[in-house]
Amino acid sequence: MIQSSGQKRVIITNVSPRVEEGRFPAKVVVNEDVTLSADIFSDGHDEIAASAYIKHADDTAWSEIPMTFVINDHWEAILKTGKLGFYDFKIEGWVDHYTTWKKGLKKKFDAGQDIAVELLIGIELLEEAAAHNVDDKASLLSWASQIKRLTDPKEAVALALSPDIAGVMYKHRHPELVTQFPVTYRIEVERLKAAFSTWYELFPRSAADGPGKHGTFKDVVRLLPRVAKMGFDVLYFPPIHPIGEKNRKGKNNSLTAGPDDPGSPWAIGNRLGGHKAIHPQLGTLKDFKSLIKEAEKLGVEIAMDIAYQCAPDHPYVKEHPQWFKWRPDGTVQYAENPPKKYEDILPFNFETEDWENLWQELKSVIDYWVDAGIRVFRIDNPHTKAFGFWQWMIGEVRTKNPEVIFLAEAFTRPRIMERLGKAGFNQSYSYFTWRNTKQELEEYLTELTKTEMRYFYRPNFWPNTPDILPPALTQGGDNAHITRVILAATLSSNYGLYGPVYEFGINAPHGAKEEYIDNEKYEIKNWDWNRYTRIGDIITRVNRIRKQNPALQTTWNIEFATTSNEQIICYVKTDKATHNNLVIAVNLDVFNTQGAHVKIPLPKLGIGYDEPYQVTDLLSGSTYQWTGDYNYVELNPYQMPAHIFKVEKIY
Amino acid sequence: MIQSSGQKRVIITNVSPRVEEGRFPAKVVVNEDVTLSADIFSDGHDEIAASAYIKHADDTAWSEIPMTFVINDHWEAILKTGKLGFYDFKIEGWVDHYTTWKKGLKKKFDAGQDIAVELLIGIELLEEAAAHNVDDKASLLSWASQIKRLTDPKEAVALALSPDIAGVMYKHRHPELVTQFPVTYRIEVERLKAAFSTWYELFPRSAADGPGKHGTFKDVVRLLPRVAKMGFDVLYFPPIHPIGEKNRKGKNNSLTAGPDDPGSPWAIGNRLGGHKAIHPQLGTLKDFKSLIKEAEKLGVEIAMDIAYQCAPDHPYVKEHPQWFKWRPDGTVQYAENPPKKYEDILPFNFETEDWENLWQELKSVIDYWVDAGIRVFRIDNPHTKAFGFWQWMIGEVRTKNPEVIFLAEAFTRPRIMERLGKAGFNQSYSYFTWRNTKQELEEYLTELTKTEMRYFYRPNFWPNTPDILPPALTQGGDNAHITRVILAATLSSNYGLYGPVYEFGINAPHGAKEEYIDNEKYEIKNWDWNRYTRIGDIITRVNRIRKQNPALQTTWNIEFATTSNEQIICYVKTDKATHNNLVIAVNLDVFNTQGAHVKIPLPKLGIGYDEPYQVTDLLSGSTYQWTGDYNYVELNPYQMPAHIFKVEKIY
Repeated sequence: MIQSSGQKRVIITNVSPRVEEGRFPAKVVVNEDVTLSADIFSDGHDEIAASAYIKHADDTAWSEIPMTFVINDHWEAILKTGKLGFYDFKIEGWVDHYTTWKKGLKKKFDAGQDIAVELLIGIELLEEAAAHNVDDKASLLSWASQIKRLTDPKEAVALALSPDIAGVMYKHRHPELVTQFPVTYRIEVERLKAAFSTWYELFPRSAADGPGKHGTFKDVVRLLPRVAKMGFDVLYFPPIHPIGEKNRKGKNNSLTAGPDDPGSPWAIGNRLGGHKAIHPQLGTLKDFKSLIKEAEKLGVEIAMDIAYQCAPDHPYVKEHPQWFKWRPDGTVQYAENPPKKYEDILPFNFETEDWENLWQELKSVIDYWVDAGIRVFRIDNPHTKAFGFWQWMIGEVRTKNPEVIFLAEAFTRPRIMERLGKAGFNQSYSYFTWRNTKQELEEYLTELTKTEMRYFYRPNFWPNTPDILPPALTQGGDNAHITRVILAATLSSNYGLYGPVYEFGINAPHGAKEEYIDNEKYEIKNWDWNRYTRIGDIITRVNRIRKQNPALQTTWNIEFATTSNEQIICYVKTDKATHNNLVIAVNLDVFNTQGAHVKIPLPKLGIGYDEPYQVTDLLSGSTYQWTGDYNYVELNPYQMPAHIFKVEKIY
Repeated sequence: MIQSSGQKRVIITNVSPRVEEGRFPAKVVVNEDVTLSADIFSDGHDEIAASAYIKHADDTAWSEIPMTFVINDHWEAILKTGKLGFYDFKIEGWVDHYTTWKKGLKKKFDAGQDIAVELLIGIELLEEAAAHNVDDKASLLSWASQIKRLTDPKEAVALALSPDIAGVMYKHRHPELVTQFPVTYRIEVERLKAAFSTWYELFPRSAADGPGKHGTFKDVVRLLPRVAKMGFDVLYFPPIHPIGEKNRKGKNNSLTAGPDDPGSPWAIGNRLGGHKAIHPQLGTLKDFKSLIKEAEKLGVEIAMDIAYQCAPDHPYVKEHPQWFKWRPDGTVQYAENPPKKYEDILPFNFETEDWENLWQELKSVIDYWVDAGIRVFRIDNPHTKAFGFWQWMIGEVRTKNPEVIFLAEAFTRPRIMERLGKAGFNQSYSYFTWRNTKQELEEYLTELTKTEMRYFYRPNFWPNTPDILPPALTQGGDNAHITRVILAATLSSNYGLYGPVYEFGINAPHGAKEEYIDNEKYEIKNWDWNRYTRIGDIITRVNRIRKQNPALQTTWNIEFATTSNEQIICYVKTDKATHNNLVIAVNLDVFNTQGAHVKIPLPKLGIGYDEPYQVTDLLSGSTYQWTGDYNYVELNPYQMPAHIFKVEKIY
């Protein structure tokens, strides 16, 4: 069977951005310049043209953006994302006979050939366009007759090449000759915070102003100025719900809790309520809403932790037994990873026949807290719940409230972490926590930023969490804490810390495990919130630098620079719109001073090889004048393990 | 809206092989082991299982091939292609509750935990399967009651883990829990020659046995034993049709032909006929069919050149003027690339409104020669004809005659050459002709064999053609001819030569152009077919080695080895089925002896690092005993620029 479109000669392929052939949208943020691109070509030597068409979900009509040729049959158009939500885009291409004729005419004229017949062909093209084009008919016929009348071929060629004619002829296409790429792809526009955020995690129950007391939301209000002053804009709490009393864990995850042990906040639910209730010792819903408002005044958003799992005494277990697995002996199935057992936690059974009600109920938890004013959720262990649920739930919530952000706390296998990003998570925990050497960091950042991942997986770099004390911090002490936070904050525009222990350099492990001993997960701490350490000071400086430098507000603009020493990593971050150019060099050896020649990619910074330029270290304030691409840096980890150089031309 | 399949927890992604998301089939050959693969995983810690389903176009039912886990959520199944034509395949995955239970049971038993309740769960699983499974009901119930009765937990565990139960339980799935990947992908199975062929190109008109005579098909019959003896299995002719007399080109592409000038065979058609006629001086259709048969007896296939273009006196121009472009002065549009003109050639206008008849007529040319016995076509300049036409035409021809092979003669931009492969061409000319350095060759072969291209673009390496005399051959003389043909013949399982000039080392260029002077395209040559050169001798040896070593009969099995000298390239080719392992080292410096340490990837050859092994140079017959992975080679381009080592274990 012959296809119905045999005259269409233009081919379109490799359309970008696309995620899994359009099964998922590509993620961008508002006011981002999104490059829509494709490989577009025709047989033969004819000129072609192409346009992208975009339509926001709120729009009724498609808007056309002409594409431009870049190199090797690659064409691009820039979409400036104006609104949150979904944009669809599609691509069309066609053989451009007028431009083909125009270029041939010019070459023949330049080669001194007779162009009389050529001009007749052009006149035919204009007249033919006029016959199909009501709006521009008069202009087209007028141009045709002008070319006819002009006796000087040079003038005729000049008129044929005029931009006015080009503009009108661009619009003139025969539908039967236009190739439409068969797939419409989707882009999801999220708010800026999805791409640029700075997280501080604390346990509200440890926020009291003295020992022996259970911290409250009101105590946290008192801490807000401190968090804001340090430059954090998301304050994230572990779950704030009633904590299970049955099979409650004691200190250091012991199987039996003492009478005063508060339990793990992730063992959710007891006789007082579940995922929509607040642990009474923290305060009331009113207190919580008031905290959200106070934080907002200081530019800080409160992020909640949602862990879809239940303590054995969670009300769901009695109200909806069909959402759990039951064993032949009549007991409920707790979480396990044989032979390990987690008796304080019951997982939901996502294969339940009552899955629709389960999904609706789980979604209603988010709805409840969105109504209370929360717009940022950190989701606990999303990789142990059905992927289909996430895709549906996040889609539903964001359709109504596109400003809601979901962070996936999944430290698991690569394909699973990728899928959660595709399913809609706006940010994801990452392997940064265990990437330490120069090669590891460069390879990981290259994978994140230069592959298809860039459009569905937005990393959030955490040097530590309440669950993870990586060996680098245990072994490297304060210096390592400083190096790792500088790396996190400058490699990724989203980063976060489990704050108090990090600031205070606490790093004693639980035996051979990569975990904190005397973990705050199982006990209330009494931090000295008035203490301000060298680590805290540098965190504050780095966060200020992030706010002041647009180049640090996106993760995708990184380019690594060659260095002469494997202990020194160097990378360039640039922001075209504001000409904000940074060169960052970090000593990865937290015990010894290291030096290296670094090769700055000057062309990327718009600086000539023999042009002097000024670099200002934003951490120390020192200024240097450099020339050429090779320059020497030396970094002492006991003083400051990094330079964050702002690079400026000297005029 | 909630999806209808909320209980399905398994995710399937990155299915391979697929070409442009299934818009084109993946190419393989008959009796090839095709790896069907996907990334497959579920949430949580449950075990999963997956199967591929395949169906040949002739089959009515799907066959199941269980997939096996490889690494990192990657699963594979092997499809052994038994028949020419199309196979469809699709992939399914499901949570495997029985295996999950079985593994947990074993771990708990090994850890000394009480497994009484666990065994009850397993019995439930077996009984539940029995309730849904008529065929295996009795066995399942019997196993369930055996487990119930066994008092020794060790025996119960052993029975639970038995392969018999595993086999039956593998078949037992709840459809509502099975994930089916939504796309069915297609594989096209071609005959072996599509992947392994050795081409010799000659002009039949130069086949006469003395000067001043026009060669004939009968003369070519006389040359067949010579071609076969040299190891070629495809003998390819430039077009054999009547040659245009209007605007005929003279010697060296001059604009005016003398009365005795035969013209270019690519200027097709005159008063005697067009694409379905034979130039009378070559012989009759009967002679041609007889030649095809004689060649077949010697294992040589005749390949025809199809150039879809017309001389100005081709009968089509009068019979189907609507297939050409006409200028306002009433003249027909010849081929041009302004300001250059090609007045002996008229292109078809693929935008003609009569395109359906044009397509049918062009296809009928292929049908005509297929009827005459031709099964291999070299298509001239396919990139100047509509891609849609190729896809349709090749599809139609191969549906009826899946053994037909089309070689795309396109030396143009990468995306265009790729698209021709996707459109159905079974082989493609390649950039090998201009890839000379070690880095160029390694990068190009890696692109061809390790990217998606492997499934849609099957390269054919030509060191020269009548159109192209590359600088390497002009500058490097006989030594370069030898080095380049050894590279072509061992890097690619499909390769070809424009034969006589190559064997005889003719390499005088046309001025600064990368073309032969006194080109056979425009004149009849009288070659001394009895001459046998050093180049010809080595070609013969290499072709024999190709026939005897399966490792050289596919292009996809290459792995490059590190060498200590950029002038020495080294690669390993292995064939698992026959344990045929080759190490090939070539000196790229055609003027000087070069030596290098080469690092043989011994694990790939199944040889231990301290195990002695024997290497036999198939070019010279010399045998060496080596140990370890680093070994020294030294190659003199005036003697033999390469080793083709066959590697064998010593027992």
